[in-house]
Amino acid sequence: MLHEQALQTAGATPALAPPPNFTGRWRNQMNSFMDLAITGSSVTGLYNSASSSGGAPVQGVINGVTIGDLIAFTVLWLPSGSITSWTGQLVEEGGVQTIRTLWHLVTNIPDDNEDDKFWMSTWAGADEFVR
Amino acid sequence: MLHEQALQTAGATPALAPPPNFTGRWRNQMNSFMDLAITGSSVTGLYNSASSSGGAPVQGVINGVTIGDLIAFTVLWLPSGSITSWTGQLVEEGGVQTIRTLWHLVTNIPDDNEDDKFWMSTWAGADEFVR
Amino acid sequence: MLHEQALQTAGATPALAPPPNFTGRWRNQMNSFMDLAITGSSVTGLYNSASSSGGAPVQGVINGVTIGDLIAFTVLWLPSGSITSWTGQLVEEGGVQTIRTLWHLVTNIPDDNEDDKFWMSTWAGADEFVR
Amino acid sequence: MLHEQALQTAGATPALAPPPNFTGRWRNQMNSFMDLAITGSSVTGLYNSASSSGGAPVQGVINGVTIGDLIAFTVLWLPSGSITSWTGQLVEEGGVQTIRTLWHLVTNIPDDNEDDKFWMSTWAGADEFVR
Repeated sequence: MLHEQALQTAGATPALAPPPNFTGRWRNQMNSFMDLAITGSSVTGLYNSASSSGGAPVQGVINGVTIGDLIAFTVLWLPSGSITSWTGQLVEEGGVQTIRTLWHLVTNIPDDNEDDKFWMSTWAGADEFVR
Repeated sequence: MLHEQALQTAGATPALAPPPNFTGRWRNQMNSFMDLAITGSSVTGLYNSASSSGGAPVQGVINGVTIGDLIAFTVLWLPSGSITSWTGQLVEEGGVQTIRTLWHLVTNIPDDNEDDKFWMSTWAGADEFVR
Repeated sequence: MLHEQALQTAGATPALAPPPNFTGRWRNQMNSFMDLAITGSSVTGLYNSASSSGGAPVQGVINGVTIGDLIAFTVLWLPSGSITSWTGQLVEEGGVQTIRTLWHLVTNIPDDNEDDKFWMSTWAGADEFVR
Repeated sequence: MLHEQALQTAGATPALAPPPNFTGRWRNQMNSFMDLAITGSSVTGLYNSASSSGGAPVQGVINGVTIGDLIAFTVLWLPSGSITSWTGQLVEEGGVQTIRTLWHLVTNIPDDNEDDKFWMSTWAGADEFVR
């Protein structure tokens, strides 16, 4: 019953105290930055992307959750109508607080093209944010 | 300037009308189900996972965004303290409305173990939800 | 020492006997198909994609590894010069042998654009293959 | 016909000359390292992981493909019987040649547990390799 152990492991993730303070400005490797505010487990804020579908910087509203070192948040990009989800956790890299994330960015595939072009719907990547 | 075109493509994702109605109950391939409510671009609801770290079903609050066919949402799992982010879009599969998603599930790596065990922090997978 | 357990779990993945026979033709949800040949842990074959960057079907050589229920393989797409990696395992879905995979497809970002467009380099998705 | 453009884009990825030389030793952020040898589009080598399911370093044979700046490769981990697939490309980060990759690591889910525990089959992450 091997994976039972892993299930138990995930289940036993310890009380995460003291939680880190995610509040404030974070910047990624592309010079995008975001301003986070935390209320309980709720994450809100504004994301300023250094690169967008139109080439210019673009802003989007942040909406997410956090517990302990973990954080996940989405940004809805307008007017393009795409969504990015970041999922990750705070780590110390050489003494620097860093939010390591993986992300998915989904864009609309027109209904008529879903059969043969859905494979182009989602980009994936990794972002690291530091203060 | 090849990827400029792709940037334009993402930027030109069309007005998505009429948007699908995500409201209601959706079930995935594992018999997990979720009840979604939509207010503007905001997604709320309750996720009932058929499998959890403790083996038993577990519920979590849904928090996300939607535009047109696209949807992304997170669930914070208590008491384990992990987070799942789903990112995807509604498609028709053989006439059946289906939300195809990719997801990341992040679990805490204790600080002392971050250097050599961070690689175990995140599970990935795909879920399909139907009504 | 929670994640130690998960480490042990991964380490203790049991002898996988008898291994499934991946040899032969497999088809995914897009009607792409692939012909696999297995020699020891080595996977070779030909992938026939129903959709390509040019719109027409395209073939690519398969190169990968397998152990037990697990399989991973890459296809180098010519002339576009992109690469897809599938990673997954054989499961039974309603009595049907199914290879469930996640994939990444990487395309080149010209050097001059790496700083601001690298985020567009990689697509992600899920494929299921049945005989 | 929006995504047609993106399809064209992917299709038109330019001749990538001169290709980088992936040959030699590369090290990631965990102090894992790998020695790559390139023959045409074929990648072979040895991967020395700083962390393994048993806690100790572990080696595995590299098997992959490359074209231009792009590279993808798999390692079959013995005796645990898991597989990692890396997919990425060479970029310059502050003048340093860096292979940025996303990876999937698949572990076996025993057949009896596939229904409710398949979601634990695959870890995901990002690695950066420098010389």
